[in-house]
Amino acid sequence: MEKTLQELAKVVGGTVVGNPQLVIKGVAGIKEAKLGEITFIANPKYFSLLPHSKASAVILPDRAKETTLSSIRSANPYLAFAKLLHLFYDKPYISTGIHPQTCIDPSANIGEHVSIQAFAVVGKNVQIGKNVQIYSGVFIGDFCQIGNGAIIYPNVTIYHHCRVGSNVIIHAGSVVGSDGFGYAWDGKNHYKIPQIGQVIIEDDVEIGAETSIDRGTIKNTVIKRGTKIDNLVQVAHNVEIGESSILVSQSGLAGSVTMGKEVIIGGQAAIVGHVTIGDHTKIAGKSGVTKDVPPNSVMGGTMARPIQEWKKSVACIRRLPTLYKKISDLKKKVQDLENKLRDKD
Amino acid sequence: MEKTLQELAKVVGGTVVGNPQLVIKGVAGIKEAKLGEITFIANPKYFSLLPHSKASAVILPDRAKETTLSSIRSANPYLAFAKLLHLFYDKPYISTGIHPQTCIDPSANIGEHVSIQAFAVVGKNVQIGKNVQIYSGVFIGDFCQIGNGAIIYPNVTIYHHCRVGSNVIIHAGSVVGSDGFGYAWDGKNHYKIPQIGQVIIEDDVEIGAETSIDRGTIKNTVIKRGTKIDNLVQVAHNVEIGESSILVSQSGLAGSVTMGKEVIIGGQAAIVGHVTIGDHTKIAGKSGVTKDVPPNSVMGGTMARPIQEWKKSVACIRRLPTLYKKISDLKKKVQDLENKLRDKD
Amino acid sequence: MEKTLQELAKVVGGTVVGNPQLVIKGVAGIKEAKLGEITFIANPKYFSLLPHSKASAVILPDRAKETTLSSIRSANPYLAFAKLLHLFYDKPYISTGIHPQTCIDPSANIGEHVSIQAFAVVGKNVQIGKNVQIYSGVFIGDFCQIGNGAIIYPNVTIYHHCRVGSNVIIHAGSVVGSDGFGYAWDGKNHYKIPQIGQVIIEDDVEIGAETSIDRGTIKNTVIKRGTKIDNLVQVAHNVEIGESSILVSQSGLAGSVTMGKEVIIGGQAAIVGHVTIGDHTKIAGKSGVTKDVPPNSVMGGTMARPIQEWKKSVACIRRLPTLYKKISDLKKKVQDLENKLRDKD
Repeated sequence: MEKTLQELAKVVGGTVVGNPQLVIKGVAGIKEAKLGEITFIANPKYFSLLPHSKASAVILPDRAKETTLSSIRSANPYLAFAKLLHLFYDKPYISTGIHPQTCIDPSANIGEHVSIQAFAVVGKNVQIGKNVQIYSGVFIGDFCQIGNGAIIYPNVTIYHHCRVGSNVIIHAGSVVGSDGFGYAWDGKNHYKIPQIGQVIIEDDVEIGAETSIDRGTIKNTVIKRGTKIDNLVQVAHNVEIGESSILVSQSGLAGSVTMGKEVIIGGQAAIVGHVTIGDHTKIAGKSGVTKDVPPNSVMGGTMARPIQEWKKSVACIRRLPTLYKKISDLKKKVQDLENKLRDKD
Repeated sequence: MEKTLQELAKVVGGTVVGNPQLVIKGVAGIKEAKLGEITFIANPKYFSLLPHSKASAVILPDRAKETTLSSIRSANPYLAFAKLLHLFYDKPYISTGIHPQTCIDPSANIGEHVSIQAFAVVGKNVQIGKNVQIYSGVFIGDFCQIGNGAIIYPNVTIYHHCRVGSNVIIHAGSVVGSDGFGYAWDGKNHYKIPQIGQVIIEDDVEIGAETSIDRGTIKNTVIKRGTKIDNLVQVAHNVEIGESSILVSQSGLAGSVTMGKEVIIGGQAAIVGHVTIGDHTKIAGKSGVTKDVPPNSVMGGTMARPIQEWKKSVACIRRLPTLYKKISDLKKKVQDLENKLRDKD
Repeated sequence: MEKTLQELAKVVGGTVVGNPQLVIKGVAGIKEAKLGEITFIANPKYFSLLPHSKASAVILPDRAKETTLSSIRSANPYLAFAKLLHLFYDKPYISTGIHPQTCIDPSANIGEHVSIQAFAVVGKNVQIGKNVQIYSGVFIGDFCQIGNGAIIYPNVTIYHHCRVGSNVIIHAGSVVGSDGFGYAWDGKNHYKIPQIGQVIIEDDVEIGAETSIDRGTIKNTVIKRGTKIDNLVQVAHNVEIGESSILVSQSGLAGSVTMGKEVIIGGQAAIVGHVTIGDHTKIAGKSGVTKDVPPNSVMGGTMARPIQEWKKSVACIRRLPTLYKKISDLKKKVQDLENKLRDKD
């Protein structure tokens, strides 16, 4: 594909500085770009790499300084870069139909233009929308619903009675709808609590590889529209995640956590059971949240606190060995004073 | 299904307060319950929700105060609730037999009333008990044994020569019997240590989704009767887990850990290699255990300590910024005293 | 198999002390060994178990003291033990060919002596070397390359356009080439950044069970020769891991991390995005690395620091409750001094 800089500027809603007729054939990183490609700088600290880049053009922040290279100026260069990647590299979806080596229950209702690959399994009374892609080794349990345009990558398991919205993407190996972890101790054994709830995944959610989302005990586990979940994340039973939230890799939400919208949970962070996290809150990576967190908070630490407090504590901890020295000096001085005063008596 | 309150009380071993002839059609949470359903309160703090519930009856702790609602009084309301969930929602198991699109070695020995779904693989000399359910995409390696009534969910992999007890449940995507992580450095390369041990999973164990349990190096990895393991847990080679223990999601046991019975390991906690954890010990979430822990301990912290000590340290850390202020005040006072004393001389 | 001690000494490059004609039939742990078997002691603390062992011979460090048992003396007993395990227990590889119940694109190019098990899928234009073993349920996407002698265990997913080197081992359930976790916020939604890079896994790499390795955004994710990765590890997009490194279970590398060679990352440790870790560096388990780390470092702590500093801080933290007491004593003394001095005036 070939596009002029002018055409690309139109796609991303930016303005050209330099030669609008320049022909661009691809998008690449600032170090990897070759002649004829466009690169981008979202973070000013990479500006110094620009004179060494072989790129023919660059996407820059609106107010970036002049460059010798032709550029597209954009309010959001990272977003502009993403849009050009789609433009240059997306391939049109062509349905491959239903592979003969599948196992699809005759009661399943399957939309138009789907692709169901070899060794996929579709259970009883499943509803599958149009343009859905189901890769090899996927298991879709009885009574599930899969929305239009969803992509389910290989070896994903979706247990019975779960609902997956439109344009949802689930990466390989993930599990949706496994039993929540619930037992009642009967004095001798852990007695299993049946998990009869469902999992509801709303539209435009993306779930990474090898993430597990348990079904609810008696209500549902719900992931709202536009939320993005990374790899190896744990979402326990009865959890509710608001719209457009972000869960980074290896984070975990314990049972009955309620999260607002546009929340960000850092990598390897954990939220204990029954906690509520307010809208727009950010939890630093590796944190442990043990109590409710109000909206718009930024929290960190093993027993998470406002991040400024936590950082102050971390700084204090680093100075502890010096502090111990200081106190022992102080103690000596006080003793000297005591001695002197006694001598005076 | 319809049952009188009297009948339900008998099932759970409780007593009716109110109308024993009340007809109950289902079980639900206190907020979700509808007319004709029974709910439960295990934690007194939810008592205030009861007047707003639409439930027709409630399971209460033995000594709970009077309510206008008919109730079943129980020593363990949570257990009673679990029993009613089984009563109302369990479906009888009906074997679906062996699906024709499977790959089962002719030397495998398969019990009565099994269900083996499409695209499952059963290796050489495998022994499968009766009433076993093997879902799609499951791989059972050569010489494995699967006990009566076991349920193996989709896309589980069990490597060769592993033993899975009766009534064991293994959720989707989990891996049993992968090679332990062992190498000897030969000066240039990591030389692989063959892992020739097995994995033994005793009766009534449940394993969550996407959990990995490595085979032993030269002895076995053993998980004893009644232990319950959550999702995304790591159990390394040569580990021995006692009876009725609990491992919460994303926790990890390094190689050759020995755990007693009725131990609880919190979410994202880790135990370093070769450590022994005594019976009935509890390890807080996110802890790191670096040394042997005696029975009946409760431990917390990155280098785990008795939890009261650890909590004291955490409280101290929070007060550190104040402490620094206090010490600098003290230092000034001492200096003042020194000056005064010098003036006196 | 039966071998004399003399023959075994030759295999491991050691020397016999005792009876060179002793016949050995197997290798076992010091507690489990039976008559006719050889055991090993790599760590001197297990020396006291030797008199109680039923083993017929033992592998000992070069300079170990005399024993009544015949022994092989070795500079690296653990490596010698590993070599004997291979000698006694490795089975010759016999190709089982391509199972008829597979789905292999006719454009795939498949080497000699491969084994491709039932329900495996091989995409378009895939190149598979000789002696490759592909287990059941494996998915290999279009345009992938798999090197000679690679072993891909059940239910592994390798997305399109990835390269797996010779003698690579990938354990069950792992995912290679899933989309990196990248979105640009457009003011209303998380806009997906296409991930058009690849994953390159060089020769002799081993990857544990249920590990996920994301493809690069516009460059590649690269794992260099001889690196070993444990179970449930997260390797994000654009990461580069040097040769012969070790990543222990449940550790995570965020996007664009660059790691040198022979680095060791402990269990549950995490490295934040864009950080560089120098050669031969060791990161303690559960650490969080937030900044570049120079070569040959040993680091620990949530905001990782040189491990000696970190350990000092941990020790200080444990003494904090005592410190608070000490300071309050000191404060009282200073007050006493002030009072006395005032009295004198």
